[in-house]
Amino acid sequence: MNSQRYKRLIWLVGYLWGHPLQQLSLTDLSRKGGVAKSTLSDDLVMIKETMEEARLGTIDTQVGVQGGVVWRPRIDLDTLKESVEFWLKALSEPDRRTPEGFLYMTDLLFDPKWTAPMGRLLAERFRGEAVDAVATVETKGIPLAMAAADHLGVGVVLLRRDSRLSDGSALSLNYLSGSSHRIQSMSLSRRMRVRGMHLIFVDDFMKAGGTARAAEDLLTEFDARLVGVGVLIATEKPRQKLVDDYVACLQWNESPSGGLSVSAWVREKLEASSAHDRGGRSLGH
Amino acid sequence: MNSQRYKRLIWLVGYLWGHPLQQLSLTDLSRKGGVAKSTLSDDLVMIKETMEEARLGTIDTQVGVQGGVVWRPRIDLDTLKESVEFWLKALSEPDRRTPEGFLYMTDLLFDPKWTAPMGRLLAERFRGEAVDAVATVETKGIPLAMAAADHLGVGVVLLRRDSRLSDGSALSLNYLSGSSHRIQSMSLSRRMRVRGMHLIFVDDFMKAGGTARAAEDLLTEFDARLVGVGVLIATEKPRQKLVDDYVACLQWNESPSGGLSVSAWVREKLEASSAHDRGGRSLGH
Repeated sequence: MNSQRYKRLIWLVGYLWGHPLQQLSLTDLSRKGGVAKSTLSDDLVMIKETMEEARLGTIDTQVGVQGGVVWRPRIDLDTLKESVEFWLKALSEPDRRTPEGFLYMTDLLFDPKWTAPMGRLLAERFRGEAVDAVATVETKGIPLAMAAADHLGVGVVLLRRDSRLSDGSALSLNYLSGSSHRIQSMSLSRRMRVRGMHLIFVDDFMKAGGTARAAEDLLTEFDARLVGVGVLIATEKPRQKLVDDYVACLQWNESPSGGLSVSAWVREKLEASSAHDRGGRSLGH
Repeated sequence: MNSQRYKRLIWLVGYLWGHPLQQLSLTDLSRKGGVAKSTLSDDLVMIKETMEEARLGTIDTQVGVQGGVVWRPRIDLDTLKESVEFWLKALSEPDRRTPEGFLYMTDLLFDPKWTAPMGRLLAERFRGEAVDAVATVETKGIPLAMAAADHLGVGVVLLRRDSRLSDGSALSLNYLSGSSHRIQSMSLSRRMRVRGMHLIFVDDFMKAGGTARAAEDLLTEFDARLVGVGVLIATEKPRQKLVDDYVACLQWNESPSGGLSVSAWVREKLEASSAHDRGGRSLGH
């Protein structure tokens, strides 16, 4: 009987992790696992307790006829720490600077191992905002935006640089980019259903904030509302950006004596993690 | 003592799921969980057995001084089935066809809920090939490629439509696209380290295969080798594509009486799933 319960718990935890942010009905779980609902409820209480204690995630329980659970994984703080350290180190390598003064990071941005934890970090920052979708603009911010959207259980609204034939008719906007000092354009297909939605804008890099501001303007044309902006790296100057509120994981001081540093809110999160580790955990010997 | 073991198993399964495709040393796991290594080994045997029986994934064990485990989640067949049904239904809606005869699917491709299962499906098809990275070209194939890369534990090599200032010097290639009957261009930054790598090319759509073929040619210039091509949708005509081997999740018959259908290898996978379900599972009542 014990061995049965061990196996059941293993299966159930695995199943929850494989179905994050989804409403899972007790009836379905009971059928899939071949387990009585009452047994399942007991198991879920223990899983909830253990997961929350170990800060791996939370389980929300809905009661009533549609009784079920939603599993919400939390970002793993060890992974986050390793990832932040990786970005700081990798981007400090001298050959990351192109002759034109840009920071080459396309290769890193497209490696899910390093980008996904940062996307999830930004997502958690906006979990309280009832976000309906994540907006981003082609191309380098896409992996970050996908990871954030996945962690929030929503989709990505892709703003394109040029409108494409395959997108049908689109609304376009020109704006002055602070980073490149050039006129850029941004467009959104009329087929994209965003009316009334609350979106966050996610991108890899922000200097003056012209792109985020343009995204906000374009979404407003579609009767959608931007409720937050999150980027991997923001330059320290200009201090005043073209969008009011934004969060950056890392800050970049472009002066020769400067460099990359971790933003205050991320540092706080990591420090909380170390404190928790020192507290220790003992699950039996 | 039993309750301790329940909690330990819950934590351990959660931890494994949160760290897929990573070499986890027993020493680290033992420290993080506050569990003796011998206890951990016993737990891992039971988890491995249960996970493999429920087809949720596999655990590879390495013995010796660097003794550790690697958790490899398998694609969940229920999720896959739901996802395949979704794509068939969504893309059959008449308003998905643009006046120019394209299939509008940007919104769907950027929703991780629907794209990730298909990316993982393609990834599993190439698991035996020792893939070092997944290549894709801007823009619509990116979410699919990221999901495939994530499932293989590798990164994405982004082929760009135009070379960008922020990418430094790049090698470019022009080719004739079979879908649009236009000359397209593709470029790869010289900074991208791909020499000697084995890559698969992943994209959302293939007609004649000109883009996949161009990707192969461009990667060859970098002394990298394309070992496979996977797309979400391939048109049935032309039957002869410009790349020898490719796999598609769905096939599109563009004639008015045609439509989308599921590829044979995907159908087989789904049928195996139904057979397994009929076998039932009982984890205790």
